[in-house]
Amino acid sequence: MFCKRVWNSSFRSLTRAYHKSLDRKGLAQAAEIVKVPDRLVAALSDIVGKKNVSTAMVVREQHGRDESYHSCCPPEVVTFPQNVEQVSEIAVLCNDNEIPLIPFGSGTGLEGGINATKGGVCVDLTHMNEILSVNPEDFDCTVQSGVTRLQLNNYLRDTGLWFPIDPGADASLCGMCSTSASGTNAVRYGTMRENVLNLEVVLADGRVINTAGKGRRTKKTSAGYNLTNLFVGSEGTLGIITKASLRLFGIPEATVSAVCHFPDVQGAVDTTVQVLQCGIPIARIEFLDEVSIDAVNKYSKMDMKVAPSLFLEFTGTPSSLDEQAALVADLCSMNNGSDFKWAKDPEERNHLWKARHDILYACMALKPGSKPYSTDVCVPVSKLPEIIKRSKEEITKAGVCGPIVGHVGDGNFHVFFPVDQNNPEELQKIQEVSKKMALMSLEMNGTCTGEHGIGQGKRELLVQEIGETGIQVMKQIKQTLDPKGIMNPTKVFF
Amino acid sequence: MFCKRVWNSSFRSLTRAYHKSLDRKGLAQAAEIVKVPDRLVAALSDIVGKKNVSTAMVVREQHGRDESYHSCCPPEVVTFPQNVEQVSEIAVLCNDNEIPLIPFGSGTGLEGGINATKGGVCVDLTHMNEILSVNPEDFDCTVQSGVTRLQLNNYLRDTGLWFPIDPGADASLCGMCSTSASGTNAVRYGTMRENVLNLEVVLADGRVINTAGKGRRTKKTSAGYNLTNLFVGSEGTLGIITKASLRLFGIPEATVSAVCHFPDVQGAVDTTVQVLQCGIPIARIEFLDEVSIDAVNKYSKMDMKVAPSLFLEFTGTPSSLDEQAALVADLCSMNNGSDFKWAKDPEERNHLWKARHDILYACMALKPGSKPYSTDVCVPVSKLPEIIKRSKEEITKAGVCGPIVGHVGDGNFHVFFPVDQNNPEELQKIQEVSKKMALMSLEMNGTCTGEHGIGQGKRELLVQEIGETGIQVMKQIKQTLDPKGIMNPTKVFF
Repeated sequence: MFCKRVWNSSFRSLTRAYHKSLDRKGLAQAAEIVKVPDRLVAALSDIVGKKNVSTAMVVREQHGRDESYHSCCPPEVVTFPQNVEQVSEIAVLCNDNEIPLIPFGSGTGLEGGINATKGGVCVDLTHMNEILSVNPEDFDCTVQSGVTRLQLNNYLRDTGLWFPIDPGADASLCGMCSTSASGTNAVRYGTMRENVLNLEVVLADGRVINTAGKGRRTKKTSAGYNLTNLFVGSEGTLGIITKASLRLFGIPEATVSAVCHFPDVQGAVDTTVQVLQCGIPIARIEFLDEVSIDAVNKYSKMDMKVAPSLFLEFTGTPSSLDEQAALVADLCSMNNGSDFKWAKDPEERNHLWKARHDILYACMALKPGSKPYSTDVCVPVSKLPEIIKRSKEEITKAGVCGPIVGHVGDGNFHVFFPVDQNNPEELQKIQEVSKKMALMSLEMNGTCTGEHGIGQGKRELLVQEIGETGIQVMKQIKQTLDPKGIMNPTKVFF
Repeated sequence: MFCKRVWNSSFRSLTRAYHKSLDRKGLAQAAEIVKVPDRLVAALSDIVGKKNVSTAMVVREQHGRDESYHSCCPPEVVTFPQNVEQVSEIAVLCNDNEIPLIPFGSGTGLEGGINATKGGVCVDLTHMNEILSVNPEDFDCTVQSGVTRLQLNNYLRDTGLWFPIDPGADASLCGMCSTSASGTNAVRYGTMRENVLNLEVVLADGRVINTAGKGRRTKKTSAGYNLTNLFVGSEGTLGIITKASLRLFGIPEATVSAVCHFPDVQGAVDTTVQVLQCGIPIARIEFLDEVSIDAVNKYSKMDMKVAPSLFLEFTGTPSSLDEQAALVADLCSMNNGSDFKWAKDPEERNHLWKARHDILYACMALKPGSKPYSTDVCVPVSKLPEIIKRSKEEITKAGVCGPIVGHVGDGNFHVFFPVDQNNPEELQKIQEVSKKMALMSLEMNGTCTGEHGIGQGKRELLVQEIGETGIQVMKQIKQTLDPKGIMNPTKVFF
């Protein structure tokens, strides 16, 4: 999730070239691009004001790709609406004229979700960035679509509350709704699916709905169909999310972190399962394989044992932390964990987690000049040792470098492949390994994506995962809400 | 949620008579009942076997109502399929012949969700009651539709795991999916919406889907639309749930309970908010008003202070409990709570919670010979003092007895009205108070149902809650998945 920081245009050219040769369906779609006529550009200007419409190539290209390897597909026009009424008017215009409509949050996605493969109109929501309300007593807030995760948490600083879902990037919160994001804190707080109370959505035909009813923000409800969770994870293919009401949580009183090393993956995973089984309210439990640890040691000048490891974080009251941590230390030891190291004071803790957060840079530093390629699969926790073992075999067989990092408490993990930008064959090998990993995950009752979404990259895998009949049902829902197929076309489904 | 135990036929006659005079729309629908022709009864016998089809009035009446006040509407035929293939064949038959199809779990619903207002075929799923798999390391299980909550928890007894969602009744788990049930443990573990990993569903036209793909059971996924949560809470109007994969949790090592009394509702609610704000992982936090406490004292021979009160439960390791409990005791005291009483050993604890669980009987005992009528609203927690105060005023104004009991950590509460079965005017007054409470809830950003569902009773309120456009979207989804409108007609929508 950190690719943006290290991405550059040379890698973009490489992946674009490779992608053209690989994704014939994408190319076929690219051929279908139709221009947005000048009269519609003028009509868009009438809606949002001239200064909030752009057809400049530099702006279009900025909106034509996310942080993934998918080739840049610039929209024909980029609009910057100021309010939901304008978004609705844009939708009506596009729907009447059958012009593709692509919502843009922060552009930090990882599966090509915002790339305008059929051209059309991009709706950049960054100007709608007000935090509309915070209700500390009710642990909720309501934000416009452009508000980012860090913006909200900075705003909340003095309230004693925070929004804990953290995909790594400073993504827009409504974009996070759109891809059903999660990250390191999901083991404790869940994903976006569990933390969105209500959404305002503009549909393809311009109708505006509040998924749980206007102004509602209860922790639970049994009133009608769960439209909120239909739109969470729909990747802009059913409507444009313009407002979200989110759950908030109290900032924990105290925090300690620890790291522990194991002779094998099994020991680390067994420890994780036992931690969960004991009901220990662990805040984070992250796995790093020996390749990742080696990378971290070199990059962050640490001297951790080069072995499969767990990075742990405990939160709560000071004495509950001692108890939690002592119990977890025992479990680590039972599973042959060693060199258990505490990070109790903020400086030590920050050092440890900075090393974890810098993992992407560390992995890239293993191959100077390389750029990152990130995978995302999720399996039942018990299958982690097997899939990690088999993934490592595939990585070795392909002769590529692939450090593994996982949100192990959820069964979710990534490989951060460093890719040599002058070596398209290597990129192909990495794509093949990624696909094999996704197929292994499906074999093991897992999913091809735990948190990055389908976008363009995993549409074929989605069919294998859900089955033809399930896909039919998804498409029926898409068809009824967006009969002209204007909403973010070519995403999620072919 | 305990009505079944005390329900009897005389109350049924009373409510039936009253309901006929009240629900004209219901009556109009009743007039539309069409008989299921003999040839179709024969075809149903061919599918499930003759002994698994019944047209006997006693069986039909048993399947014609749940535990609510809604009048009994017997289906024309009751079937008992043995497997999903049979359910699918029944659906095809009914769809081809435009015959209503009503799934039946345990009949413990509270909004008339299973009453066959248009006749048709009831699909009683109780014969499909196998626990198909338990994966202790992955904290999940898969059950057929007839498996009940207690059946599952008995089965899990030796695994150290449990399924904590507890609506009170021993409901079928797939029925709980269908109404998006929750209960006293939701403050800690969430509702069904957060705890269902996958569903097998038979659609109106007989197609069988697995909402997250066959066999998938990951803790999180971003793969395609969240069909699982579209069916959770859809009350049988989109399809018949025949299998569910559910999350499980470790049974906590230790438990303590406590009770504390307050001078007013505000003190109890402020304590609740502060408990949540401190991030204390409280297991249950239940509110009882002074009328309920008086009822409990009399019924369970206790001598608690007659005042608004909190019943609390803490779980965890022994020493973490001490810390949690000491902190909560301080918070209670800061909010003028008094007579804080611990229940540490199992006997004391059971006594306290038995008193809470017996609340319905206790309320009924306030008016000998009465029967229960239960409401269900849910608001943002900060609105609880106001809505409880105003509800009490309405109860007083109506001159009825209405003890209030709430899952206060979620902002959800009920009134257990004892109804004199010889007094239809009283029932009418209670229905009016209930409606006023729901409307107040809507005014306060709340919902008309936190956990009971819409069924027949709250269809008008749903429109007010979600708004016309949101209802249109829900109906579009219904229409696309069930174009002939055979799935549990007249429920959720008019």
